Amino acid sequence: MIVLPRGGTLRSRVYRAIRDLIHRGALAPGDPLPASRALAASLEIARNTVEVAFDDLRAEGYITSRPGAGRFVAEDLVLDQLTPSSSKTTSSPPALTPFGQRARNVDLGSPAGAAIDIDFRYGHPDLDGRIADDWRQEIAGVTSTMTLDTLTYGDPQGHPDLRRAVAGYLSRARGINASAESIVVVSGSQQGLDLIARLLVAPGDPIAIEDPHYLGARAVLQAAGARLVTCPVDEQGMLIPTRPARLAYVTPSHQFPTGVVMSVQRRLDLLRWADSENAFVIEDDYDSEFRFDGPPLQAIHGLAASNRTIYLGTFSKVLFPALRLGYLVVPDSLIDAVRGAKWITDRHSPTLEQLALAHYIASGRFERALRRARVRNMRRRRALVDALDNLTIDHELSGASAGLHLMATFPGLSTAELDAAIERAARAGIGIYSAARYHLRQPSRARLLFGYSTLSERRIERGIEALTPLLR
Amino acid sequence: MIVLPRGGTLRSRVYRAIRDLIHRGALAPGDPLPASRALAASLEIARNTVEVAFDDLRAEGYITSRPGAGRFVAEDLVLDQLTPSSSKTTSSPPALTPFGQRARNVDLGSPAGAAIDIDFRYGHPDLDGRIADDWRQEIAGVTSTMTLDTLTYGDPQGHPDLRRAVAGYLSRARGINASAESIVVVSGSQQGLDLIARLLVAPGDPIAIEDPHYLGARAVLQAAGARLVTCPVDEQGMLIPTRPARLAYVTPSHQFPTGVVMSVQRRLDLLRWADSENAFVIEDDYDSEFRFDGPPLQAIHGLAASNRTIYLGTFSKVLFPALRLGYLVVPDSLIDAVRGAKWITDRHSPTLEQLALAHYIASGRFERALRRARVRNMRRRRALVDALDNLTIDHELSGASAGLHLMATFPGLSTAELDAAIERAARAGIGIYSAARYHLRQPSRARLLFGYSTLSERRIERGIEALTPLLR
Repeated sequence: MIVLPRGGTLRSRVYRAIRDLIHRGALAPGDPLPASRALAASLEIARNTVEVAFDDLRAEGYITSRPGAGRFVAEDLVLDQLTPSSSKTTSSPPALTPFGQRARNVDLGSPAGAAIDIDFRYGHPDLDGRIADDWRQEIAGVTSTMTLDTLTYGDPQGHPDLRRAVAGYLSRARGINASAESIVVVSGSQQGLDLIARLLVAPGDPIAIEDPHYLGARAVLQAAGARLVTCPVDEQGMLIPTRPARLAYVTPSHQFPTGVVMSVQRRLDLLRWADSENAFVIEDDYDSEFRFDGPPLQAIHGLAASNRTIYLGTFSKVLFPALRLGYLVVPDSLIDAVRGAKWITDRHSPTLEQLALAHYIASGRFERALRRARVRNMRRRRALVDALDNLTIDHELSGASAGLHLMATFPGLSTAELDAAIERAARAGIGIYSAARYHLRQPSRARLLFGYSTLSERRIERGIEALTPLLR
Repeated sequence: MIVLPRGGTLRSRVYRAIRDLIHRGALAPGDPLPASRALAASLEIARNTVEVAFDDLRAEGYITSRPGAGRFVAEDLVLDQLTPSSSKTTSSPPALTPFGQRARNVDLGSPAGAAIDIDFRYGHPDLDGRIADDWRQEIAGVTSTMTLDTLTYGDPQGHPDLRRAVAGYLSRARGINASAESIVVVSGSQQGLDLIARLLVAPGDPIAIEDPHYLGARAVLQAAGARLVTCPVDEQGMLIPTRPARLAYVTPSHQFPTGVVMSVQRRLDLLRWADSENAFVIEDDYDSEFRFDGPPLQAIHGLAASNRTIYLGTFSKVLFPALRLGYLVVPDSLIDAVRGAKWITDRHSPTLEQLALAHYIASGRFERALRRARVRNMRRRRALVDALDNLTIDHELSGASAGLHLMATFPGLSTAELDAAIERAARAGIGIYSAARYHLRQPSRARLLFGYSTLSERRIERGIEALTPLLR
């Protein structure tokens, strides 16, 4: 009795029914198959359907036919190893590479709480303004003119239009003189970090990193097997590493998460250190677009000849994270390796989104949207700073002059008391977040990180007002 | 005399002019700055502009002001290491990791010839049909409903909608029972291969690969430091490795580039080999959607319990390569590691394109487009096979029953003679391509690869007709 499995064409259902009988051993090598006429009648389907299914089985070597004698399961099929009982070895865990073992245990972060009403989570996109409308129009523009060139494999370094647009933007906005040839388009700053780590970090290599720091950078460097040389952060930014390192990862425009802006003297000292160590500096400029008390500080990349600095930019903060587009500005000595690594990794980033972004920047709309976003975020920041000012609990703010978040330190609270307050706040529908997880070695104080780019001024005020009793 | 550099706001131009004077040493630590009133007058700009530029310079630590005495270049600035002459160490090549050294030298392929009229290049997208129109509509659909969820960071494993859609498609089209939980969305099959190599291939590990083979797989495995165990291909597909290996990379549906379909017996033997070696099989099913003499053969993945097989699918062939979307079907034992590696690598693939693709598949439009493409490609294949039939030079075809290319072997030609013919053809505006570069160890015979998915039947006929005299 043959029962047809569900799904697919009749022909494939017949094929699968018989194949499964063979695999289960219900039909053994050498066994005769039912005649197609009889099988078709019993299944109430056309005989021809059974015939073509038999043809498929024969094409794959499951069955043979002997003239005048009918069809048989192939004599030479060896199926025994496929029964589950003989595959015991497969339950042993696979032997992963050191990278694989670390990747398996990486902290993927926690999803947003369900019942959070006013969420001070950092890193969410700003849905006010016209970013979504702008993006819809740009995407519609590029999809209306799709050609062979835009649909086939593209340049691993990134579409030349986007690289030129980014070079122009960096010159106007950051004082960075980068040629389109030195820019590599990457799928978000995470990929930029990963490519650099794969090229420059061998297992055991000492790598300098701010402490506290961005968790994506920690994950990449640890997965590459780096020995992290943690450098505390003071009011001038990351302290210069006191031990040798191959590479320093730094967020000078707005240290993550403390918000400290690295002083020029510290920037120059870091470059001198890199020179003496023959090391590279990765300058992660993740939110320099937002500075509120003047133009953004000069990037390290623009301070000196750029052969020590790898500049990392992202569109996650100024457009939206799900876009997954960023860029590296790379010294000449590294460009071939980065281009090759990008090709090996994923050939190139998606072309249509690169073209939409190139047009968005070149048309001037991007920088207009940025100016609007800056004004919105300045108002939000002011609302947040003013509201925190009214908090009756002793605290200090840092990082308020730039970026899309600030940090509050509570000298009168222990970290355990703060954690309890965070839980109480969550139950009251207010999402606040401890900075503790960004610390690796430095002892953590009771510090909260406040992101504000998704909240209206009124909600910011309401949220902070509600915090006072919750923080005790 | 201060000359303002070009670009940016007046404030930033004044800032940069003075900063550059300091960096060049024209203004030394301790030197007085010109009075803002005098400088404004000489530059014919507002005094206030000069004042705010001075504020920026002071905020960064370049200058100090002494009450009553004016402004001075900061005494403690140490700039000497930034003059180009002292940065000699930077001209030494950076110390790259073994991966980096291989990445720097990877073969990125050759761009298409400029004057090629009829191009039998393999891998270009099929612009007939309505793929571009379909895609424009799907993208417009998702961009019309952008929300916080679709714009913020997404699931590293891929959007659940797309994973469910792919699971349904695999069940209908490939007889693969994969849950959405076992699917990982990747940025093209290249990334799928790279993730697996990073997780499973340590330097020196023996990895089995077909010879000839797909160059993207070779590049990934070599960059990971694999010792390649090359396995010749006969008329049943890749021979079973005779030496131990951790992993076997195979294209059973339509071996690349020979086009051989792996027999069921060979598939079963390969699984048995994997069991005995405790190895994984990567099944790259890059073009199984196109089979012309029956339904696609059962994937290895569906032949047996799936804990030995990593299935790799791509939308590059059935939609277009620049989309950069593909997927892995991963055994339970590997899923956490693959998810973590994807997060480290680039957080996740772009969300809007994932959602557009999910809707395209779930709405049934994808499979309708696929059926149309199958009909078009069947006609093209027939035109190509018929035209090659008329070629008066001795040759054998393989790979014509499936995929989007076929291979012709010319027993009467040496590879040097073939290379000369390829050059003659290019000069005559016809692009034909040798299979030699896909071979690593096997001696190559005179073989041409013909892709046909971008050409009309008439152009296929014209191109092959013109070839006879060119092949001599």
